[in-house]
Amino acid sequence: MKPDFQKRQKRLAELMKKKNVEAVLTSDKNDIYYYTGYLGFKDDAIFMLFPADRKPKIIATLLESEIKTVYPHVMFIKKFEDLFKIVRPYRIIGFDERKMNVLLYKKLKKLKLSLKPFEKFIKMQRVVKDEYEMNQIKKAIRVTKKAFKYVEGRFTGKSEIEIAEMIDMFFKKHHVENAFESIVSSGEQSSFVHHKPNEKIVKSCEHVLVDIGCKSNGYCSDLTRVFGRLTGKKKAVFEDVKEIHDVIFDNLASGVSIEAIERLQGKLFRKKGYKVCHSFGHSVGLDVHDPMPDTLKENMVMTIEPGIYIKGIGGFRIENMILIKKNKAEMLS
Amino acid sequence: MKPDFQKRQKRLAELMKKKNVEAVLTSDKNDIYYYTGYLGFKDDAIFMLFPADRKPKIIATLLESEIKTVYPHVMFIKKFEDLFKIVRPYRIIGFDERKMNVLLYKKLKKLKLSLKPFEKFIKMQRVVKDEYEMNQIKKAIRVTKKAFKYVEGRFTGKSEIEIAEMIDMFFKKHHVENAFESIVSSGEQSSFVHHKPNEKIVKSCEHVLVDIGCKSNGYCSDLTRVFGRLTGKKKAVFEDVKEIHDVIFDNLASGVSIEAIERLQGKLFRKKGYKVCHSFGHSVGLDVHDPMPDTLKENMVMTIEPGIYIKGIGGFRIENMILIKKNKAEMLS
Repeated sequence: MKPDFQKRQKRLAELMKKKNVEAVLTSDKNDIYYYTGYLGFKDDAIFMLFPADRKPKIIATLLESEIKTVYPHVMFIKKFEDLFKIVRPYRIIGFDERKMNVLLYKKLKKLKLSLKPFEKFIKMQRVVKDEYEMNQIKKAIRVTKKAFKYVEGRFTGKSEIEIAEMIDMFFKKHHVENAFESIVSSGEQSSFVHHKPNEKIVKSCEHVLVDIGCKSNGYCSDLTRVFGRLTGKKKAVFEDVKEIHDVIFDNLASGVSIEAIERLQGKLFRKKGYKVCHSFGHSVGLDVHDPMPDTLKENMVMTIEPGIYIKGIGGFRIENMILIKKNKAEMLS
Repeated sequence: MKPDFQKRQKRLAELMKKKNVEAVLTSDKNDIYYYTGYLGFKDDAIFMLFPADRKPKIIATLLESEIKTVYPHVMFIKKFEDLFKIVRPYRIIGFDERKMNVLLYKKLKKLKLSLKPFEKFIKMQRVVKDEYEMNQIKKAIRVTKKAFKYVEGRFTGKSEIEIAEMIDMFFKKHHVENAFESIVSSGEQSSFVHHKPNEKIVKSCEHVLVDIGCKSNGYCSDLTRVFGRLTGKKKAVFEDVKEIHDVIFDNLASGVSIEAIERLQGKLFRKKGYKVCHSFGHSVGLDVHDPMPDTLKENMVMTIEPGIYIKGIGGFRIENMILIKKNKAEMLS
């Protein structure tokens, strides 16, 4: 089962007409994939120009001549500047203001185009996942959970870097790629939220926080587990994280506002005497941090990831992926 | 041996004074690494504000609190908008116009700052490599050459994806990461310059083009080899590529202009009846495509990569890495 690209295109075309935009221009590889089915190597290597009344065109140099075997509507240019000739006929263009760089923006401005920030509208429908997308996300979650099983109990005596490499190799063996740089942080080092794995050797008495994810056909997973036998203060903190995680989970359903959940997380943390270090979660899809709406939508996929970090003791985070439904959330991981 | 960060900072500060810029602002992770020694997870996650008369400051949220264990001059902000308070005192700021997005640019403009495109000056000195950088690049080249040896003779019966995965796993085992997505293209498919490895099985009669690279402490390699016994037309084309490669190599030395080499490549291709599909090479360093000067500099590292692509027959590219010296080039790979 493949995604319904035509439906996606139609929806964006309708938004263009509503917002009085003649065409959309972007170089975000995930958005281009979402609307055309062609997944490029990296951002900014190719462009998509999508006129409201026609099929989206991919614009690329001849280095990317293979695109035409995947997507028929492609225009090859000799040099980057030829892009301007293609864009010139349009008076009002919607663009991704978070992706377009200032250099290109200034050049387009010289063409006397009206450029409208359109990121929100380009990405909006990516929030809600269809069946194909759900299958890919579920596969990415399955492999990630297997990776946890694979490394569990094998930490002591290894460096954080070695453990991260074991996980990355496991992903490769299972034909998926990393969704982001694996975070493996042990003992006190886990009190840094974004810790870069280093040469530190894990001792048998230490806990290990592992925050990893992979991509299946472009779709990401993002999960965090804490390993090791926890006692005393560490155990108490971990149980608090678990409790907060579960309360947040119970309060998620379509229609709930993100702000309300952030407030709830703040209240839960304060009640137990902790400081909030980061948001309760994020939307997941083609990007690990996918577009986030103001209120939860039915069939969006997101993480819940409360974390408590105490200097000298360590960090404890539980991160699961969930599916938002009408009156509830469903655990995916 | 570590790089001399102070020297790098002093050089950029001098450029700022000369160009009448009070501070430089960038979110390019490689530039931040180059000037501070801190290598972040990805672009746009942290900023560097470098006032001409002081030490560069890293600006990050508390998620990145670990930075201070690596680099002392770091300012933590609660939310992204706090960046504007830090930037406000400066009247003229040099920024990376290729890295900064339009959203941030417009917000900074509202502060009544004068923003000067400064990418060229920020990246300029990265062209010439110091001893530490050369050692890292040489290590990345060594591992890449080992990867070629590892896969050589093991292609037949495997899919391109499987071969790419073998290479990526080899890199992981040798504690380096991919510098870019591995290109493995076989038979006729090799006529696409940027080919994405797919499920196609390599037949014993086919040649295989492998374009791969890895990173050692942030520094890249980028090499291409063609494997398989070539006969007839294929052999003739490959030998032409080899000849062109060698002539270009013989003509490289510090002071030679890029334009002159492109002209030379064009002449060599035309003489043999081929079409030029891409540039003769590129600078390599922290980026696979590192900043490229107008004329070759002593101690810059670059690729030579002539390629000939014929539909129905295939593509043939030889890519080596070289070091530019006073009156010659030295082969690194």
